[in-house]
Amino acid sequence: MGNTFGKMFAVTTWGESHGDAVGVVIDGCPPKIKLDESDIQSELDRRRPAQSKITTQRKEQDKVQIISGVFEGRTLGTPIMIVVWNQDARSKDYNHMKDIFRPSHADYTYQMKYGVRNWKGGGRSSARETVGRVASGAIAKLILRQQYSVEIIGYVKQIADMVSELEPEEVERSNIESNIVRCPDQKLADEMISKIEEARKNGDSLGGVVETIVKGMPVGIGEPVFDKLDADLAKGILSIPACRGFEIGSGFSSVTMTGSSHNDEFHIKNSVVRTKTNFSGGVQGGISNGENIILRAAFKPTGTIVKEQQTVDIYGNEVAFSARGRHDPCVLPRAVPIVESMTALVILDHILRQRGQVGSVMKNNNSKA
Amino acid sequence: MGNTFGKMFAVTTWGESHGDAVGVVIDGCPPKIKLDESDIQSELDRRRPAQSKITTQRKEQDKVQIISGVFEGRTLGTPIMIVVWNQDARSKDYNHMKDIFRPSHADYTYQMKYGVRNWKGGGRSSARETVGRVASGAIAKLILRQQYSVEIIGYVKQIADMVSELEPEEVERSNIESNIVRCPDQKLADEMISKIEEARKNGDSLGGVVETIVKGMPVGIGEPVFDKLDADLAKGILSIPACRGFEIGSGFSSVTMTGSSHNDEFHIKNSVVRTKTNFSGGVQGGISNGENIILRAAFKPTGTIVKEQQTVDIYGNEVAFSARGRHDPCVLPRAVPIVESMTALVILDHILRQRGQVGSVMKNNNSKA
Amino acid sequence: MGNTFGKMFAVTTWGESHGDAVGVVIDGCPPKIKLDESDIQSELDRRRPAQSKITTQRKEQDKVQIISGVFEGRTLGTPIMIVVWNQDARSKDYNHMKDIFRPSHADYTYQMKYGVRNWKGGGRSSARETVGRVASGAIAKLILRQQYSVEIIGYVKQIADMVSELEPEEVERSNIESNIVRCPDQKLADEMISKIEEARKNGDSLGGVVETIVKGMPVGIGEPVFDKLDADLAKGILSIPACRGFEIGSGFSSVTMTGSSHNDEFHIKNSVVRTKTNFSGGVQGGISNGENIILRAAFKPTGTIVKEQQTVDIYGNEVAFSARGRHDPCVLPRAVPIVESMTALVILDHILRQRGQVGSVMKNNNSKA
Amino acid sequence: MGNTFGKMFAVTTWGESHGDAVGVVIDGCPPKIKLDESDIQSELDRRRPAQSKITTQRKEQDKVQIISGVFEGRTLGTPIMIVVWNQDARSKDYNHMKDIFRPSHADYTYQMKYGVRNWKGGGRSSARETVGRVASGAIAKLILRQQYSVEIIGYVKQIADMVSELEPEEVERSNIESNIVRCPDQKLADEMISKIEEARKNGDSLGGVVETIVKGMPVGIGEPVFDKLDADLAKGILSIPACRGFEIGSGFSSVTMTGSSHNDEFHIKNSVVRTKTNFSGGVQGGISNGENIILRAAFKPTGTIVKEQQTVDIYGNEVAFSARGRHDPCVLPRAVPIVESMTALVILDHILRQRGQVGSVMKNNNSKA
Repeated sequence: MGNTFGKMFAVTTWGESHGDAVGVVIDGCPPKIKLDESDIQSELDRRRPAQSKITTQRKEQDKVQIISGVFEGRTLGTPIMIVVWNQDARSKDYNHMKDIFRPSHADYTYQMKYGVRNWKGGGRSSARETVGRVASGAIAKLILRQQYSVEIIGYVKQIADMVSELEPEEVERSNIESNIVRCPDQKLADEMISKIEEARKNGDSLGGVVETIVKGMPVGIGEPVFDKLDADLAKGILSIPACRGFEIGSGFSSVTMTGSSHNDEFHIKNSVVRTKTNFSGGVQGGISNGENIILRAAFKPTGTIVKEQQTVDIYGNEVAFSARGRHDPCVLPRAVPIVESMTALVILDHILRQRGQVGSVMKNNNSKA
Repeated sequence: MGNTFGKMFAVTTWGESHGDAVGVVIDGCPPKIKLDESDIQSELDRRRPAQSKITTQRKEQDKVQIISGVFEGRTLGTPIMIVVWNQDARSKDYNHMKDIFRPSHADYTYQMKYGVRNWKGGGRSSARETVGRVASGAIAKLILRQQYSVEIIGYVKQIADMVSELEPEEVERSNIESNIVRCPDQKLADEMISKIEEARKNGDSLGGVVETIVKGMPVGIGEPVFDKLDADLAKGILSIPACRGFEIGSGFSSVTMTGSSHNDEFHIKNSVVRTKTNFSGGVQGGISNGENIILRAAFKPTGTIVKEQQTVDIYGNEVAFSARGRHDPCVLPRAVPIVESMTALVILDHILRQRGQVGSVMKNNNSKA
Repeated sequence: MGNTFGKMFAVTTWGESHGDAVGVVIDGCPPKIKLDESDIQSELDRRRPAQSKITTQRKEQDKVQIISGVFEGRTLGTPIMIVVWNQDARSKDYNHMKDIFRPSHADYTYQMKYGVRNWKGGGRSSARETVGRVASGAIAKLILRQQYSVEIIGYVKQIADMVSELEPEEVERSNIESNIVRCPDQKLADEMISKIEEARKNGDSLGGVVETIVKGMPVGIGEPVFDKLDADLAKGILSIPACRGFEIGSGFSSVTMTGSSHNDEFHIKNSVVRTKTNFSGGVQGGISNGENIILRAAFKPTGTIVKEQQTVDIYGNEVAFSARGRHDPCVLPRAVPIVESMTALVILDHILRQRGQVGSVMKNNNSKA
Repeated sequence: MGNTFGKMFAVTTWGESHGDAVGVVIDGCPPKIKLDESDIQSELDRRRPAQSKITTQRKEQDKVQIISGVFEGRTLGTPIMIVVWNQDARSKDYNHMKDIFRPSHADYTYQMKYGVRNWKGGGRSSARETVGRVASGAIAKLILRQQYSVEIIGYVKQIADMVSELEPEEVERSNIESNIVRCPDQKLADEMISKIEEARKNGDSLGGVVETIVKGMPVGIGEPVFDKLDADLAKGILSIPACRGFEIGSGFSSVTMTGSSHNDEFHIKNSVVRTKTNFSGGVQGGISNGENIILRAAFKPTGTIVKEQQTVDIYGNEVAFSARGRHDPCVLPRAVPIVESMTALVILDHILRQRGQVGSVMKNNNSKA
């Protein structure tokens, strides 16, 4: 259970890292949307292994195929099935992992939960599962952009102790995709890349923070009281492998502020109700207020490292273990499209829910101006 | 929509702050559990207004009534309906709020989403809605304790910049409930209380962090890939009013660690597979590993303050606004039972899901020793 | 589990026959709908005990109270909680049932499922639970009528072997409510009433068929492939106590027809695509085609009878049993508003789902003319 | 939406009749179950086109492939993706249907709902979608048989006016599969086959009734009040293409009985509480009572016929239409495994739900003896 996300735009991912394929079924995609495989491929390429020297060198083209739900170039409104065949699935690289519980991986917990696991490359717990998320997220982003003028921009804000001080509103997508670490602060990006390469040479790994801004957000999206927009964003983000924390707006830093400095005062701007500040990160009472949504996701340093570690095997023996094969010394650059995708899936799902309730969705702040 | 939480132990809260009553329906409570109103009342009393000098002085006894689902002192397995009648519901204190969008409240977003709102005390967006969460959480905690030996302990770790350095494992419930701010560091608690009182005098408010430890957690609980245990905890916690951030285990601090220092090595202890450290916070790959679950929730400073603020009314006029009536200068002490409740609801729900899949649930680390 | 119905207009009923109260929470009711208790009361009165000489004489006024979700006469879009207090709940009439498994009741199955049951009057398995269905159905019917011009008319088509030959299109609500058995064939109604009274005198009971017509149905409502409109109607109808069968359109009688006689040919009428016949009952491929929806529900003879029957007690003894107290010799007259309510809940839910997908709902055949 | 069925054993079908493939994703299959493709293939062969002279002659081998969720011959507990590639998908046979709304098909309703449709062979509305149902149903049946000793046997009870009088308890699977119409009354089967061939020669089609018996049913399965076992069965059955009616136990025939003749008296047999009769069809109050479950599904005569019919095209012209290509003159023989599959999906899902609530499932009547 638990492999489906969303109520109105429901995505179900399937597949294991070294099985035949990975993919996703989307139920609830609105009909008549122009869609072809290239719309999805471009996003999968941002998530693809071996895209740069600081990602894993596993050889996967991740070529997308749409198997159902699209007819003569347009969505049918019926389930869209998307598959990416695993090319490197027969690898023997993982035999040494067969009997081992890798530290800070899901080997032990899967074994205890299910009594069985596909030990090849982490099986279902591998981040390869996120292929389905990015493929469906690509469609969600396309719909959000075309039908609602919503733009979602994620980027690396922090690697280890290197923190970009750029304000989210200053970030352009072109500045993110111009470097392989996906940090819009170009100078800091070089430093981050060096540190990631250094970590790899040391057989070690680094963590970081992805920040995301959602521009053009319609007002009134989000369902009180449990399915708050920020609550569903938190779930979506925390469901990404290696994610350990979530913040909306001021997040943990709000804790040391006072109410009088933290409250976002309202005023009228271009005839629209706006807030002067945006400590709320665009969400108040679980519902969007039309300001940009700002969120951050903390990713731990990759669990897979070459440095030797102590662990336990499935027979209860204490053993030493070193990862072989190729892996990411830092997941952050490839995490960016995944965070964007989960953000898009949550927002589109909530827009469709709101549309069900009132029949239309309130325009965003710009469109009202 | 969005007023139901959980799949197997599903709670639906209802009611507005100044309507007739607030309450909850629980669907999926296992049968034959000994339950009376006092089991719930004790937890509601921890959430109750006017319980101390640092909470709102609104007069509510919050007396719980079980209307259905319990027969001759035991649960029937059918829906449990719980009601708490509002006593102070006729108050005129809120008339000045009728036409105002209070800063950093949900007045504006509710109005835009629904085109109508109950403006008395925030209506549905009021934290009074959490009465239903705490009532159902009390039952979940009781079941977790009695049937699974799971204990959930929440406490205030931080208020403004005052941070308790106690390790979660050192915290005893008796040390928490012994002071009105619910911080287990008794000396710091006094300081926190003073600062909260000072904020109130200034017409201002403070934020803070609630930390929660779950002891005796069974192994194998949590559903990959979207309904990860930590993802559902994140959603539950972020759905609490005023919550702005969530962390599991090392959380945001993991970002500056390396993989070799952050990974939790496995070893054998008392014949059980254990981790030497617990940076994972008890969850790996979205599934519990039997270690204590550690999570943190960031709460912003209360939005309601007496200090004058600029805002906008429903007619589009820019106006000044000061909150009247009684309110919490800091929600943290009352947030503790709410965080515990959401944690309990998530964990019990996931235990029941796991039971459905395999018919039984793996014992916790202690029971295996 | 299983006490919630619907995804977008989700109703959760709660309460036992002889507990404190019965009721319902509605999550997803659109906002700003004018609603007061009299809108609901009029429908509850059609379901009420003791409304005529052929229903049970249990004394219940079934006075409705709206506890939440309505403010200043309009719905808020947040949960509507409705309660009906049980007045006759302290009755001792049921003590003789305490240890008995009544034949063709749910006493045995509840005991085996839950290991406990509220034996007073059937507890949760009592048809008294349908109070919540009729209350929420009243709201759904009101919305369907006001916002979509959809009218749902149910009536008794058959009692025992007495079958009304009226075509659904000939039936007017005034002809149904003009007699206590709710059969639009006035002459047959008298005969039905006599036979029901005779059954009662004999300590026996009768069954029958409720037929329902839905007029003004919008086109395009229903979700392939599992949540077909007729599939969800079947579920809703079969979930009513004592219901044993469901048909849409030609139903079981289609079996003896040939394709060439059964197919509904299309033609153009008043510029609208219409079918010449309506064997499909308004649903094709699980989606409404704009013709009237016609469905039938079979109800078995009431299980509660005064005639002595053989049964078993909870200790495993074979015993004789005769029902005491007041009961319905035939549930059909009171089943009519329940069938209408389930029909309304399904249709409104599906309209809101369709609205989520495309943003608006296609008008019905008349509006296009 | 609406392409997922089940909560604990959730199946999502995808694919169109003349797209690349059809298939299913199963989420919630218990782990460690021995499973290979032949377990599924044998059931797909019962549903396959061209299996006999009385089914459509479309050339499809329907060869099953398991793409994920099975590792080294056992289920992983993670999603099982099953695909059947369409071999005859490039057929030009359907060009004449492109602009036509076929009578009593879903062409018109899909067009009106989605504003677009895959007109090749019915696209998503084709019964080819049931490949995914039968594939997942095969797994559900295997689990029910191996883990719960539950056996589900479906068969043709009626074609047109030819009705088998065999009691469900007399039916053996070998007697069903021994003839191509799947009627256990061998003599009647020959007559049915002749009449179906005759209908085909006439360019016409026939309907019928599938009856199903579930033996070895555990006690206590089914969730009041909406997710009653019979209500979910009704939904599952009515979701099958061409199904128009559903009955449990005595069904519509109960209507003409009296309570005293219809009630199932309890007695003790082999130390187990049993009913003397089984008019309830194994379900009381929505919960299984351990007796055999008996249900019936009415199927209309196939909509696709060669005889000329009047209809309308997408431009609003009234036109004559005759189906070309190969089609089933009677769906009943191929409907049998589909009805069994939906029955299995409902029952397994409910067993897992019950297991979640109480941790184990009550044995069936035989096992208690």
